[in-house]
Amino acid sequence: MIQETIEKIVPINLEFAVKAQRRLDNLTKPPGSLGRLEEFAKRLVAITENVMPVLDKKVIFTFAGDHGVADEGVSAFPKEVTRQMVFNFLQGGAGINVLARHAGAEVVVVDIGVDFDFTKAGDSPDSTASLRFARKSWDSPLTAFISKKVVMGTKNMRQGPAMARDEAIRCIEVGIELANEYTKKGYKIFATGDMGIANTTPSSAIAAVLTGKPVSEVTGKGTGIDENSFKNKIKVIEDSIAINRPDSKDPIDVLSKIGGAEIGGIAGLIIGAASNRIPVIADGFISTAGALIAYCIEPKTKDYMFAAHNSAEIGHKAMLEKIGLRPILDLDLRLGEGTGAALAILMIEAGLKIYKEMATFGEAGVSKKNNQ
Amino acid sequence: MIQETIEKIVPINLEFAVKAQRRLDNLTKPPGSLGRLEEFAKRLVAITENVMPVLDKKVIFTFAGDHGVADEGVSAFPKEVTRQMVFNFLQGGAGINVLARHAGAEVVVVDIGVDFDFTKAGDSPDSTASLRFARKSWDSPLTAFISKKVVMGTKNMRQGPAMARDEAIRCIEVGIELANEYTKKGYKIFATGDMGIANTTPSSAIAAVLTGKPVSEVTGKGTGIDENSFKNKIKVIEDSIAINRPDSKDPIDVLSKIGGAEIGGIAGLIIGAASNRIPVIADGFISTAGALIAYCIEPKTKDYMFAAHNSAEIGHKAMLEKIGLRPILDLDLRLGEGTGAALAILMIEAGLKIYKEMATFGEAGVSKKNNQ
Repeated sequence: MIQETIEKIVPINLEFAVKAQRRLDNLTKPPGSLGRLEEFAKRLVAITENVMPVLDKKVIFTFAGDHGVADEGVSAFPKEVTRQMVFNFLQGGAGINVLARHAGAEVVVVDIGVDFDFTKAGDSPDSTASLRFARKSWDSPLTAFISKKVVMGTKNMRQGPAMARDEAIRCIEVGIELANEYTKKGYKIFATGDMGIANTTPSSAIAAVLTGKPVSEVTGKGTGIDENSFKNKIKVIEDSIAINRPDSKDPIDVLSKIGGAEIGGIAGLIIGAASNRIPVIADGFISTAGALIAYCIEPKTKDYMFAAHNSAEIGHKAMLEKIGLRPILDLDLRLGEGTGAALAILMIEAGLKIYKEMATFGEAGVSKKNNQ
Repeated sequence: MIQETIEKIVPINLEFAVKAQRRLDNLTKPPGSLGRLEEFAKRLVAITENVMPVLDKKVIFTFAGDHGVADEGVSAFPKEVTRQMVFNFLQGGAGINVLARHAGAEVVVVDIGVDFDFTKAGDSPDSTASLRFARKSWDSPLTAFISKKVVMGTKNMRQGPAMARDEAIRCIEVGIELANEYTKKGYKIFATGDMGIANTTPSSAIAAVLTGKPVSEVTGKGTGIDENSFKNKIKVIEDSIAINRPDSKDPIDVLSKIGGAEIGGIAGLIIGAASNRIPVIADGFISTAGALIAYCIEPKTKDYMFAAHNSAEIGHKAMLEKIGLRPILDLDLRLGEGTGAALAILMIEAGLKIYKEMATFGEAGVSKKNNQ
């Protein structure tokens, strides 16, 4: 299925970029003066092969998974926070809910690897209350929950592979399936997000292996660990790479041995987006680890990606450089969930609106540049 | 009037910042993980002395003025574009209209120094059509036009002062009056913008004099002039400073001799905003020249300012550093009008929504950090 999907990915259509540029240069502003907003519009036109793209339906996929490596004390938060945050997403009270509403986007929470059985969630009093609250509390689009569980958390990668190879493949397929499904439902732009206690650890491991940089240069303090835990985290990642010997030429091998389920889902979503000609915004550090897996599987996916922001997590930059993406925002964010991507949607839409709604020199009766 | 207004400006209330921080640290996210969004919320709370600030009414003031120095060939566009763009604003077809709609903000176009008599605009067939169109075309808030003309364009500063001292003072007063009026009308956040062919030239002159940097380090290509015109522009600015000898210790002297009417209006608006405890977003290069004038008149105004973005125009950074502001966005914009400020509104609002709408750990039943 992955191979089949990759074969559908084509480079974006530069003829459409030229058409978009022609319109942009005729709008009542000095050429190029709206900088990256113009770039966003041009890319949307080229991706969609539509001179008047529409971004009416927007969706952020927040992939949730647990990590066996959390047992090594690499996170400031206890592991149960992953599932607690899933309930928080469904209640509409998390950062991603707030910012998705701000951007007019829907949130789809995907359980791809949480170490908790949500089908039994109805038994626990807090969760039923949560789900009820989710339906009543906000008049903006609801948060959806989709169960696509591949693993009950990954295994501790310091002791062996985080996932079996077929599990890693299945995670990517989940992302592709979601991309296909939401394309059919008429969504016009996708964004990625993540939830998983300890998931900066596999993301740093992936960054180290796929960019070739030392672990210490791509590892940060995640949710806010102290100095000792930070040193331990670097050691844990180094050990995990040494024990598993992931093949940097085989991104699926990397994903299975030192990755995470949500990272695989994100990689798959990006591959699926590209195969459907849907623009996709990668959020921050964890999402970019997924984007880097997608890029290493098929570099043409890059044409369809936007990098939402420059994460405060060290190591993010190296991955963005490897893919060749310039982030849209730089707001010292390091929350994940898709929060940066939600904000980036607003900037990409701003670019599209400029392109579609501004008057041309002719329409407005404004003189062009001297000697033109 | 300026003195009276300045005396009303007080430092922002840090007790409120502490209260805001307490709430931010109790929301379901690692402390500080929403970076600058948290900073924006905290500043709004401290500025307004309100633990639950509201940003329901937002207004962008686009000050328009002409510049005698345009005669020196410093711009890529002919001078009549200033008035043509005012009509474009009223038709809703300019960049600022599109982005203000995107941000849910109103646009107020202020004629503070355009070399055109808009009271006779009804005589010209294009303008009546324009005004009619403005009333019919968009269901989002209309663009308002306010006549506060102080000069019919400034004089050519290469041959003497751009304005008389009392004209410069009057420009600042216009800004203060607007700030007072729109505070009374219930607007909760102001943003600044500019329109004026050739106005990067006085802005660079102000930057050079008030930061102490050489003209060549703070002068850029504005709307897009060629190499020869660029060299000429630097020479024109150097000559203007040499002839007028503005006193860098007297910001009003600087504004009158080498400034512009719209820059004075922007400075006044910022002073007026601070005196009314209203947060104010300075757009890009020209607006920051106004902000720097305001800051040099009364440094406490800084507490009330947000810097919208890092302009592609060289010289902007030196002014932001002088004031001590870190820009919110960095999108290679160099259009002015308030376009960057409109986008920044969306980010500041995002910070406020996070602060107001996110669930706390207790509300969501999410575990806090280990050992807390």
